[in-house]
Amino acid sequence: METHLQPTDLKNDTLLRALAREPTAYTPIWLMRQAGRYLPEYNATRAKAGSFLKLAKTPSLATEVALQPLERFALDAAILFSDILTVPDAMGLGLYFADGEGPRFERPLRDEAAIGRLAAPDPTVELRYVLDAVRETRRALAGRVPLIGFSGSPYTLACYMIEGSGSDDWRAVKEMLYSRPDLLHRILEVNARAVTDYLNAQIEAGAQVVMLFDTWGGNLTAAGYEEFSLAYSRRVLGALRREADGRRVPSILFTRGGGVWLDAIAASGCDAVGLDWTVNAAEARRNFGNKVALQGNLDPAVLAAPADRVREQARRVLDAFGAAPGHVFNLGHGISPQAGVEAVAALVDEVRAYSMQIRKRRP
Amino acid sequence: METHLQPTDLKNDTLLRALAREPTAYTPIWLMRQAGRYLPEYNATRAKAGSFLKLAKTPSLATEVALQPLERFALDAAILFSDILTVPDAMGLGLYFADGEGPRFERPLRDEAAIGRLAAPDPTVELRYVLDAVRETRRALAGRVPLIGFSGSPYTLACYMIEGSGSDDWRAVKEMLYSRPDLLHRILEVNARAVTDYLNAQIEAGAQVVMLFDTWGGNLTAAGYEEFSLAYSRRVLGALRREADGRRVPSILFTRGGGVWLDAIAASGCDAVGLDWTVNAAEARRNFGNKVALQGNLDPAVLAAPADRVREQARRVLDAFGAAPGHVFNLGHGISPQAGVEAVAALVDEVRAYSMQIRKRRP
Repeated sequence: METHLQPTDLKNDTLLRALAREPTAYTPIWLMRQAGRYLPEYNATRAKAGSFLKLAKTPSLATEVALQPLERFALDAAILFSDILTVPDAMGLGLYFADGEGPRFERPLRDEAAIGRLAAPDPTVELRYVLDAVRETRRALAGRVPLIGFSGSPYTLACYMIEGSGSDDWRAVKEMLYSRPDLLHRILEVNARAVTDYLNAQIEAGAQVVMLFDTWGGNLTAAGYEEFSLAYSRRVLGALRREADGRRVPSILFTRGGGVWLDAIAASGCDAVGLDWTVNAAEARRNFGNKVALQGNLDPAVLAAPADRVREQARRVLDAFGAAPGHVFNLGHGISPQAGVEAVAALVDEVRAYSMQIRKRRP
Repeated sequence: METHLQPTDLKNDTLLRALAREPTAYTPIWLMRQAGRYLPEYNATRAKAGSFLKLAKTPSLATEVALQPLERFALDAAILFSDILTVPDAMGLGLYFADGEGPRFERPLRDEAAIGRLAAPDPTVELRYVLDAVRETRRALAGRVPLIGFSGSPYTLACYMIEGSGSDDWRAVKEMLYSRPDLLHRILEVNARAVTDYLNAQIEAGAQVVMLFDTWGGNLTAAGYEEFSLAYSRRVLGALRREADGRRVPSILFTRGGGVWLDAIAASGCDAVGLDWTVNAAEARRNFGNKVALQGNLDPAVLAAPADRVREQARRVLDAFGAAPGHVFNLGHGISPQAGVEAVAALVDEVRAYSMQIRKRRP
C-alpha cells in the first residue's frame, strides 16, 4: 500500500466539488481520451512503446501519457491511461489491436463450456500493471488535479467478449441475448464481480473518481438495457468503496446512446451521468439536475473546426447546462485523432472564461 | 396519368386506419426492407437483374420483388422497391454500390462551386423509373394493401452526398456543419425542394402513404437536429399533397437514434413517428399517442432467433404499445439478411393473433 496524499493536498478539487453538486468558481473540464493520438507527444511515446497495448501495460509510459495533456491544457482532471477491455484480457480472452482497427479478442466467448469456466480475475495479480499505473500516475500528479479510474461496464465488456471485436449490429451478442439469455446473464454476473473488484482496487491504489464506460449499452432495447446493462452497472455502483483519503469517491456512468433512458440511469446510484452529444442538456438539467451531476456533452467533431467556431459551440453547451452547480464539461464521446491541438486549447480556455462569466451574470 | 382505383377498392385499409388513429381489428404490420436478401426469391430476382441498382431501376423487376413478401406473409402494406438515395443520383452524383458495402457516390460534394450548381431534379424526367415502379406496383397490388412511397430525408441525403459513403463519424459532414454551415444549408434547401417534388410525384403516381427515412439524423446534437434535419423534414411534410383518390395520404417520419427528440418529431407535421428499437414504446404512447400514430419497434436482431422467442418478443412490443388505436407494428430498423423466413412468418402470425386478443381483453 502506498501512503496517499491527504485531502488537503489536492490543489484543484473543482471536479470533485462539481461532481458533489457543490458551487465552483468555474465549470471543470476534462476530455474523454484526452491522452490520445491528436497529441504529437502521445504519438511519440506510443512509437517508443511499440504499440498501444504495450503503452497501456507499462506503468511508467502510461503515467507519462496520462500527464501529457495537463502540460498543455488547464484541465481539471487526469484519467488513468488504460483500455476499457483490460478485465476480459485478464480473464484470458487475449486482447489485441489489429493495425488501424479497434480492439479484438483472440478467444471470443462462443460456447457454453467456455462461458461456464469464466471467472473474475484477482486485480492485484492479473491487473497489477493497471494498479501500478494508478499509483504511479497519482504520485506524479502530486495533488495537481484528481485522478479518474475506469472500466468498461459489464455489458460493454460482454459485447466485445462475445463478438470478439467491434460490430455494426452485434449479431453474436444479440443472438445469445434472444436465444440463450441465461448464458449472457452468466457472463454479466462474472463481469459485474470482476468490474467491482477492479474499480475498488483502483480506488485502493489511488483513483479519486471512477467511471463506467457503457459504450455499447445503446444497442439494446429499453427493456434490454434495464435487464442486461443497467442492472449490472447498478450492482457495480452499489458495491464500490464510497470513500478514500477521507473524501467521497464519486462515480460516473456513461452510456453512449443512453439519452433515451436517462430517468433510469440517473436513478442507478451513480453520482454523475455522462451525456453523449445527442442529449438536450437544458432538458436533462431540468429533469435530473437535482438528482445527479451531469457530464458532457460537446460533439467531438467540433474539435476539427477553427478556434472561433469551437469557442462558439463551447458557449452553446455551457448555456444549455446553465450556471447551477453540478456540470462537468466534457465531450459527448472520446476525442478523435482529427482534433486540433489549438482547438482543444481554445475549448479549455473558453470553458474556463465563459463559465466564470455566466456565474457572475446570475442574480 | 394512370386511372387509379377508387378508395372502396382497397381491400385491406388497416394500415391507413391505424395511421389515422382509428380503431382496427388488429395491429397492422409491415417491415422496413421487407423485400430483401432474407428472401430466396428476392435473391433470385436480384441475380437475374445483375445488381441491386439495376433491380431498383427496372420497374417490372422492382414490382416483382415488392410483391414477393406479400405472397409469403399476411403483411398490411407493400413498400415501393427503391433506394433512399435516388434523388442525389438524379442530381448527377453517380450512385453506386461497391460489392458487399453500402451506397457510394462517384462525385461527392466537397467544393463550393459544385454545391452552388446543385439543382433539384424534375422527378417526372430524371426519376421516371421510380414513378413507373410506383404505378406498376400499385397496379399489380390491385387494391390488396396500400402502397408506401418513400425518400431519404434532406439531411440523410446530404450526409451521403457530402461524405460520399456511409461513415462511423461523418467527418466531412461535421466539418462542413461546424466550419461552413452556410454550405450545408444550401444543400439542404435544394434537397428539401427535391424531396418534396419527388414524394408528391410518387403520390401522383399512386403511393398511398409516404415515409421519410432520416437514417442519419441521429448523428447530430439536439440543436443540430432541429437546425439541419428536422427543419427541412418539416418543410417537406408541410408541402406534401394531403389527399389522393379522395383519401388522406399519411406521412411517416423515421429518425434512427431520434428517440431523444420525440417531442419535436411528434410536432413536425407527420401523421406517424417511426421508433427505433431503443425507444420505450409504453412511454412514447403515454407522451405522444394522442398527437400522432407510432410505428415500430421490434429489435431486428430478434428475427435471427427461434420462432417461439420471436413470438415472445412480438408480444412484449404489442403489450408496450397497448391496444389503443394508432400503432403500426414494424421493426426498429430495416430487416437484416440474417432474418429467418420462418421467424418472419411467426412474427406476422403472432402480431395478428395477439393484437386481436389484447383488443378483446380491454373493457
